[in-house]
Amino acid sequence: MRQDQREANQLRPITITKNFVKHPEGSVLIEVGETKVICNASIEDRVPPFMRGQGKGWITAEYAMLPRATQERNIRESSKGKVSGRTMEIQRLIGRALRSVVDLNKIGERTVWVDCDVIQADGGTRTASITGAFVAVVMAFGELIKQKKISKMPVTDYLAATSVGMLSDGKEILDLNYAEDSNAAVDMNVIMTGSGEFVEIQGTGEEATFSFNQLQAMLHLANDGMNEIFTIQKETIADLANRIGETDEDGDK
Amino acid sequence: MRQDQREANQLRPITITKNFVKHPEGSVLIEVGETKVICNASIEDRVPPFMRGQGKGWITAEYAMLPRATQERNIRESSKGKVSGRTMEIQRLIGRALRSVVDLNKIGERTVWVDCDVIQADGGTRTASITGAFVAVVMAFGELIKQKKISKMPVTDYLAATSVGMLSDGKEILDLNYAEDSNAAVDMNVIMTGSGEFVEIQGTGEEATFSFNQLQAMLHLANDGMNEIFTIQKETIADLANRIGETDEDGDK
Amino acid sequence: MRQDQREANQLRPITITKNFVKHPEGSVLIEVGETKVICNASIEDRVPPFMRGQGKGWITAEYAMLPRATQERNIRESSKGKVSGRTMEIQRLIGRALRSVVDLNKIGERTVWVDCDVIQADGGTRTASITGAFVAVVMAFGELIKQKKISKMPVTDYLAATSVGMLSDGKEILDLNYAEDSNAAVDMNVIMTGSGEFVEIQGTGEEATFSFNQLQAMLHLANDGMNEIFTIQKETIADLANRIGETDEDGDK
Amino acid sequence: MRQDQREANQLRPITITKNFVKHPEGSVLIEVGETKVICNASIEDRVPPFMRGQGKGWITAEYAMLPRATQERNIRESSKGKVSGRTMEIQRLIGRALRSVVDLNKIGERTVWVDCDVIQADGGTRTASITGAFVAVVMAFGELIKQKKISKMPVTDYLAATSVGMLSDGKEILDLNYAEDSNAAVDMNVIMTGSGEFVEIQGTGEEATFSFNQLQAMLHLANDGMNEIFTIQKETIADLANRIGETDEDGDK
Amino acid sequence: MRQDQREANQLRPITITKNFVKHPEGSVLIEVGETKVICNASIEDRVPPFMRGQGKGWITAEYAMLPRATQERNIRESSKGKVSGRTMEIQRLIGRALRSVVDLNKIGERTVWVDCDVIQADGGTRTASITGAFVAVVMAFGELIKQKKISKMPVTDYLAATSVGMLSDGKEILDLNYAEDSNAAVDMNVIMTGSGEFVEIQGTGEEATFSFNQLQAMLHLANDGMNEIFTIQKETIADLANRIGETDEDGDK
Amino acid sequence: MRQDQREANQLRPITITKNFVKHPEGSVLIEVGETKVICNASIEDRVPPFMRGQGKGWITAEYAMLPRATQERNIRESSKGKVSGRTMEIQRLIGRALRSVVDLNKIGERTVWVDCDVIQADGGTRTASITGAFVAVVMAFGELIKQKKISKMPVTDYLAATSVGMLSDGKEILDLNYAEDSNAAVDMNVIMTGSGEFVEIQGTGEEATFSFNQLQAMLHLANDGMNEIFTIQKETIADLANRIGETDEDGDK
Repeated sequence: MRQDQREANQLRPITITKNFVKHPEGSVLIEVGETKVICNASIEDRVPPFMRGQGKGWITAEYAMLPRATQERNIRESSKGKVSGRTMEIQRLIGRALRSVVDLNKIGERTVWVDCDVIQADGGTRTASITGAFVAVVMAFGELIKQKKISKMPVTDYLAATSVGMLSDGKEILDLNYAEDSNAAVDMNVIMTGSGEFVEIQGTGEEATFSFNQLQAMLHLANDGMNEIFTIQKETIADLANRIGETDEDGDK
Repeated sequence: MRQDQREANQLRPITITKNFVKHPEGSVLIEVGETKVICNASIEDRVPPFMRGQGKGWITAEYAMLPRATQERNIRESSKGKVSGRTMEIQRLIGRALRSVVDLNKIGERTVWVDCDVIQADGGTRTASITGAFVAVVMAFGELIKQKKISKMPVTDYLAATSVGMLSDGKEILDLNYAEDSNAAVDMNVIMTGSGEFVEIQGTGEEATFSFNQLQAMLHLANDGMNEIFTIQKETIADLANRIGETDEDGDK
Repeated sequence: MRQDQREANQLRPITITKNFVKHPEGSVLIEVGETKVICNASIEDRVPPFMRGQGKGWITAEYAMLPRATQERNIRESSKGKVSGRTMEIQRLIGRALRSVVDLNKIGERTVWVDCDVIQADGGTRTASITGAFVAVVMAFGELIKQKKISKMPVTDYLAATSVGMLSDGKEILDLNYAEDSNAAVDMNVIMTGSGEFVEIQGTGEEATFSFNQLQAMLHLANDGMNEIFTIQKETIADLANRIGETDEDGDK
Repeated sequence: MRQDQREANQLRPITITKNFVKHPEGSVLIEVGETKVICNASIEDRVPPFMRGQGKGWITAEYAMLPRATQERNIRESSKGKVSGRTMEIQRLIGRALRSVVDLNKIGERTVWVDCDVIQADGGTRTASITGAFVAVVMAFGELIKQKKISKMPVTDYLAATSVGMLSDGKEILDLNYAEDSNAAVDMNVIMTGSGEFVEIQGTGEEATFSFNQLQAMLHLANDGMNEIFTIQKETIADLANRIGETDEDGDK
Repeated sequence: MRQDQREANQLRPITITKNFVKHPEGSVLIEVGETKVICNASIEDRVPPFMRGQGKGWITAEYAMLPRATQERNIRESSKGKVSGRTMEIQRLIGRALRSVVDLNKIGERTVWVDCDVIQADGGTRTASITGAFVAVVMAFGELIKQKKISKMPVTDYLAATSVGMLSDGKEILDLNYAEDSNAAVDMNVIMTGSGEFVEIQGTGEEATFSFNQLQAMLHLANDGMNEIFTIQKETIADLANRIGETDEDGDK
Repeated sequence: MRQDQREANQLRPITITKNFVKHPEGSVLIEVGETKVICNASIEDRVPPFMRGQGKGWITAEYAMLPRATQERNIRESSKGKVSGRTMEIQRLIGRALRSVVDLNKIGERTVWVDCDVIQADGGTRTASITGAFVAVVMAFGELIKQKKISKMPVTDYLAATSVGMLSDGKEILDLNYAEDSNAAVDMNVIMTGSGEFVEIQGTGEEATFSFNQLQAMLHLANDGMNEIFTIQKETIADLANRIGETDEDGDK
């Protein structure tokens, strides 16, 4: 049993609140245990200079934490005047993951800006961000459809992320909270699609290593957890759920 | 009658939710109409280098908006690599206002970091920040008292802020929302203490000017609104309300 | 009596030297007591990108101090690589004030760059900057008229600024020098037009507050001082003085 | 057969030249096909502030490319004034990997600075950097032993990295060059120890996904290639090869 | 004859006004023709970290131009957030030159900050800065002697600078103004001591070259002009003139 | 005799290796004694904005050192976020020198980017950079000729650089290595053309001065060394050597 009474293969409770903020085209508050992230998706009617004239769109993500999202207050990155390497890694990861399930050729020359702002952190902020951002992006495209700017949902599949890890005693666990993450020998973030394919795997053992068998065990834990998350996503976007993947039905892309 | 059906001297509804985020010593979500600001007060057990060894504390504030707090998405200041002049003005204002009602000699060599993060903006974000931050700071000091690090509440009086303005037709109004603010001929922010003194007045007419009489009318509107705000603050911190000003009772400072 | 033998309502001596530097379209050295500021107004024949194509102009201001304008040498802002919050506040204030008395629709798509460089500081540098910059701007427009680029003086009224304050004993005084400013309980900058309207009021009590009556007393002091300043400005720009406000006579704007 | 006539499971030729630059404690030029990286390891006799007084050391890495290491010239990061997200990701990865095979408790309060400077790039610069940096670090520790500053080699195991990927036709290949990397559907970097454990796995499918079986196939390819690389490393540091792991023989750590 | 009626070997009129600004320990306004530079020397009672504990002092210089010192307004370096290469070159040159005639062992652990701020530019701003800064530095040391912080003038010799150049017709001229400088084929800055030694020579032909004989001719012009400048410096600091070089009389250093 | 057994007028051995890196249009590794610099010349088919539409080209240079090119590791300029004054001086010098022997009117609207990256430093890195960069630039133009983008070699003359100096005992020497440079009383960099004209002279005596006669002696040493360097350059670019200066034969420019 884990410190918070969870089984090794048990996720923390997940809540996704839609329309948390009123201005964005898509907005959710995702809570994964005590981790809380506001995920906003904004549509801009143009693409970055290097993509102009190609008739396709772009998705990019930014990630930040409120200074006191954590136990100790962090210096604000705007005050430091630069974004940390950790932040850059995370926002590149979020953007890349979202782009893997969106058909950018179907959204016109538009940019989707995804902002993931962590207001309370307890481990797994990057995976919660991806899971929440997926919902916000679907909502934003739903808004574009409602405005008749696009006709079909350009999202090809569900997308979610979670972490798995290995404790120093060699035990594999699912969905690490901050206390577990701090003590884990191995930490692995897994991003998958609704059809069970991997989008990204990042497994790291800073002061430890892991064997082929331990890797398999962690991947299976991730796969099991993922299915529960997809269920929650589907319920949240019930009105749009049956449109996911509809652009593929034409056999296009 | 105003666009949102308010009278000229009518505030928007104000809600203050305590403990919105779990880590900070003091934390509130303040909502003033559609404007929503997370105000967190964090205690650090040291002061900036220029104040060390003087036996007194410091209060400083930082202010930011989520990129999509507004109708149009703004570029994140951490991405731009610098804080805008507007942000600097606002965070200096918040810090100065809070210091005017805290006896810094009574808090030891500690820094109170106040973070005001606007998650949704509809005018009056800086005044909402001050009104909310005041509550967060009182809560943080309440926490210090509970931890027996200080013995008395070092807050000498209530503190709140609101805006008043003059429309282009010369009519004075209280608590401008974004639409009103954009069209106002004169915009004035007023910060006052619970005993009716001014802490700061900033009245600006970018493409207009105002007469002595118009100034008086605006100040009276502000004064009336302020009393309602103090009532809400008192209810929010009911458990600590009677401790405000207790350090003055000794005749000290 | 004040330390420098002035009455409470007495300004320091003011001198405005025209054409202090030869290249700018308008240039003055303003001396207010021991405070000395070079105010240069430069005309650029285009506007910032966000204003292009609107057929109107823009006025913007920059403010800086020589490192040793003050008793202690300050680090140069170019060396620090960023402009301080104080500098930003001041230059935004100067620009806003000047725009309130210029009809931007009458100057074509031009930018007026106002540079206020403090070479010696003894309190009141921002108010001296505004008073001096007004003269430099009028001179620059005079130059545009001479070059037949515009036909009428687009300045609608005189503009000047001064400070008032309240000492810790509660006494209100006009035009604070550095020693007074450092010890004042309340510091207020007032910007007014030649016709007696307020453009901006910024009253601050960092570690003090002020009552409604004290505010009135300070405003009256400011108003009295302002008239003397307008007289000096008029003498300085004697050749252009009767053209101030001429665009209003058409009933336009 | 691949464009450069390699088999799917065939590495490019690897050459490691020791003492390429004379000043560093450890220095190699590693060539992996047409990719060439100078890896220098420098010993500094102190640790970063956050680690002082703990009696242990630190390893950190920096990575850069010469502007014309690539087909098109890149803007120098020192000219841009900031390090890109890609660079940050890579240098964090290199440092983390090296720390996983060094017993930091055995090197005293010293920092090992590892500089990986790519002088010619043809894909796989980050994995070549890790493979080469490992050798440079062993050399630097050899130098410390020679200077009698430490008595045992603090490196616990061999460390190398390579890439594997999946082409758009679903075929898995080992050690991608630039042309292959640009067209790959999935790109995966694998870092392993001499004893066959994983240190880090980063698999990414930006516009594609991969199945569990494809993942297994890629991992097996990586594992096979790794053994050849370890052989080359051992030959390069023949004089120190038998000392790798000697601190573990005591049963310590 | 030159455009401003000067002979080839004729300097522009030079004026040095002492105590132009009141706060610095040494302050002059130097005018060389239409070029005007405020040179302030400030004494700080400590040295940079890398020099502490050596019992000697340091001299460093900063150089800047007011934005409208030139015909076209320049962007302020504090707004750009970085100092240009040209500015860095000039301030390094000024500091190096001054250090060559000051015995840093005789000034205690103090830093002399020299600020050269060009308020009007017409060619030769860097050489005017050096000539003026020398006087400001002597004044600042005079102030240290008056305060009995040091007992002898630590300046070992006079120091001045001027420019020479070669026009496109091959004619050599002394002390180029802006118009001449813009059209010169070769531009050379020469810094010399009162005893006729060179401190620095920087001769540049961007789109031209110069022969050995032309170089000799330019050096002779510089040498002749220098003597006139030393005479003006001596008159300006008449009260301290006989103390220059007094530390050498002991045979020390 | 000098520490490395050289005569006062003896250069260190010079080696220039062509095509050191494969991507650039021109690339050499130059070794001057223990100083090693990679010089790459890249052609970009456009010019900076301020030069567009003039039908001529531009040459610009960047210079950097690997962090451990020196005895002590230096902080990487990209990590510091800014380029040092020393670096700026050097890269401006390299660019200026190269432009003096290239007829920019003959290269079309192209920019030549010259990157000089020091991989090992032992004094004289800037002069080695210029000597090597000249060869890389000739190679790059040779490539343009081969691609039939230009028809004639636009290089008007040979260009090389070396250093001379004066030891503290007054002895003049040629081509200082690091140890000599650190102890020299005077350091002078000389850049000359193949026809014996000066392009740039920079002579500096930070804590010393030099007489007219000493200057002459140093210039003669430089002149003698230069001829040996031109011979090496000619051998290196034997295939293009007879084309240097061919654009002048038309009498054009």
